[in-house]
Amino acid sequence: MNKPYVIGIDMGGTNTVFGVVDARGNVISKSAIKTSTHDDINLYIDDLHTELNKLIEEAGGKEKIKGIGVGAPNGNFYTGTIEHAPNLPWKGKVPFSELMTNKFGLPIALTNDANAAAIGEMTYGAARGMKHFIMITLGTGVGSGIVIDGKLVYGNDGFAGELGHTSSVRNNGRMCGCGKSGCLETYASATGVARTAREILEMSKEASLLRNIPADAITSKDVYDAAMGGDKIALEIFEYTGKILGEALADFVAFSAPEAIILFGGLTKSGDLILKPIVEHMNANVLPLWKNKVKVLFSELKEADAAILGASALAWELK
Amino acid sequence: MNKPYVIGIDMGGTNTVFGVVDARGNVISKSAIKTSTHDDINLYIDDLHTELNKLIEEAGGKEKIKGIGVGAPNGNFYTGTIEHAPNLPWKGKVPFSELMTNKFGLPIALTNDANAAAIGEMTYGAARGMKHFIMITLGTGVGSGIVIDGKLVYGNDGFAGELGHTSSVRNNGRMCGCGKSGCLETYASATGVARTAREILEMSKEASLLRNIPADAITSKDVYDAAMGGDKIALEIFEYTGKILGEALADFVAFSAPEAIILFGGLTKSGDLILKPIVEHMNANVLPLWKNKVKVLFSELKEADAAILGASALAWELK
Repeated sequence: MNKPYVIGIDMGGTNTVFGVVDARGNVISKSAIKTSTHDDINLYIDDLHTELNKLIEEAGGKEKIKGIGVGAPNGNFYTGTIEHAPNLPWKGKVPFSELMTNKFGLPIALTNDANAAAIGEMTYGAARGMKHFIMITLGTGVGSGIVIDGKLVYGNDGFAGELGHTSSVRNNGRMCGCGKSGCLETYASATGVARTAREILEMSKEASLLRNIPADAITSKDVYDAAMGGDKIALEIFEYTGKILGEALADFVAFSAPEAIILFGGLTKSGDLILKPIVEHMNANVLPLWKNKVKVLFSELKEADAAILGASALAWELK
Repeated sequence: MNKPYVIGIDMGGTNTVFGVVDARGNVISKSAIKTSTHDDINLYIDDLHTELNKLIEEAGGKEKIKGIGVGAPNGNFYTGTIEHAPNLPWKGKVPFSELMTNKFGLPIALTNDANAAAIGEMTYGAARGMKHFIMITLGTGVGSGIVIDGKLVYGNDGFAGELGHTSSVRNNGRMCGCGKSGCLETYASATGVARTAREILEMSKEASLLRNIPADAITSKDVYDAAMGGDKIALEIFEYTGKILGEALADFVAFSAPEAIILFGGLTKSGDLILKPIVEHMNANVLPLWKNKVKVLFSELKEADAAILGASALAWELK
């Protein structure tokens, strides 16, 4: 292959991590810069160029690079712009792909992080060979990337696949950062799990190891550790979170009839403790024709590299 | 054009209607046979062949026909089979396309009625020129057909797009014929509207024109007539149905970010009385980026011909 490498860039609100990736999904080099300290997008790109160029030179120069894939909050695949991203320092619409192409002289593909994760999973991970699947990322928020007929669904405007903001609780649901209430994200994200812990701990008189941790700081890891010790409250938190997720997944299945749903993020480290209630409640809420037919899988990408891999996978699809 | 016509067949539990259609969506001839009286699928196809052949001969013979499109309950586009359709007289999996091709010597495309409606709308109706839209059919049940990038979504197994069986009410919802409870179909179908009428009439002491009609027999037309006369209960039925539908549509928007949602069926004859609450509640439940951006339209196909047109449109896509 003339151009054996792609570059993946994962832009978060705090840090931007990036790396050079080969066709087998090996991250052959990686580095990072701060996102949040750059109020000026041009200075951010200058800084990114300086650091990333070192990796490009190590890899044999620009001629070896097929392109750059970028996963960024509110990244629009169609327009190459980052639009009104609340967690980034730049306001309004940023013509990110254009600025990047001008600076790097390489083709750029941009999308949001959950879509990048889906393409990463299809290229290197649990969805290899699948034509129809849904990726759900369970992190600070809940993101999603939907693949139909082997292609990511971008929709009419580039922003399809916001399943974290479908309604899990229609009346008196939790307030969501998006302005709505009852969104799946308010229950299944890391903060959602902490909110559930707080609610269940308050309503119950049951002793729990989780009472030793400030409720706002409880992570799914803490809940896992407690559950492994037989803690009833911890088990209840998994059951509740799994029920909400399973019910949501059942509705997603009715939409696109996927072969599998792939879950990514901290919550998946709890293994069967979370998977069992998810699968149970999903199967209880799908039409008979899908009962026990749709796989629920965990991501097969190493967490440390997943964001870079996901973004990099976009670049293989560049024309 | 060598083959200027297609044939559309719409199979219902009681009747099967069919017609010859030209490229502009004119139904140039049509007829019907009973479905329910044929316990043997082969006798049904014999009968269909006899009647349909008359129309084919009138149109200039088989050489003028590009193919036959069929909309049938549980019709599977991938396999050409009709699978476990509860309203049809044939049990199990019926190899319908194979039987039809053998009989007619013409290529067959099969899908369910709601998917056929979506393709019909894209070919001849309100979705002409659209790449991303969702069709919702509001009839005895609630069906849906989802179009992404100009293609109907069939999913991994051929059965994608069962949005009538997504969950509108998660706890204590109405029992649905599918075995689940709380399905959109139990609220937004014709029988769903009658159930809502019955519930509201029972709970309220308000006078209503609808009290003169047996509750099980109330149609959306009755509710419309009453509402036009200022009937408060009738207006409440529209508000309730529109809220449930609008909330559901908001979640569908989060999935595929369509340009429009197109509604078909008796309920749409009520015009703004049902459209206003649908649009209001949809916009109250989408992310800010979609607020007042996604169109909600009524079908542009004449109701008498819509089923034939939808099925026929499938045949234009035959290779």
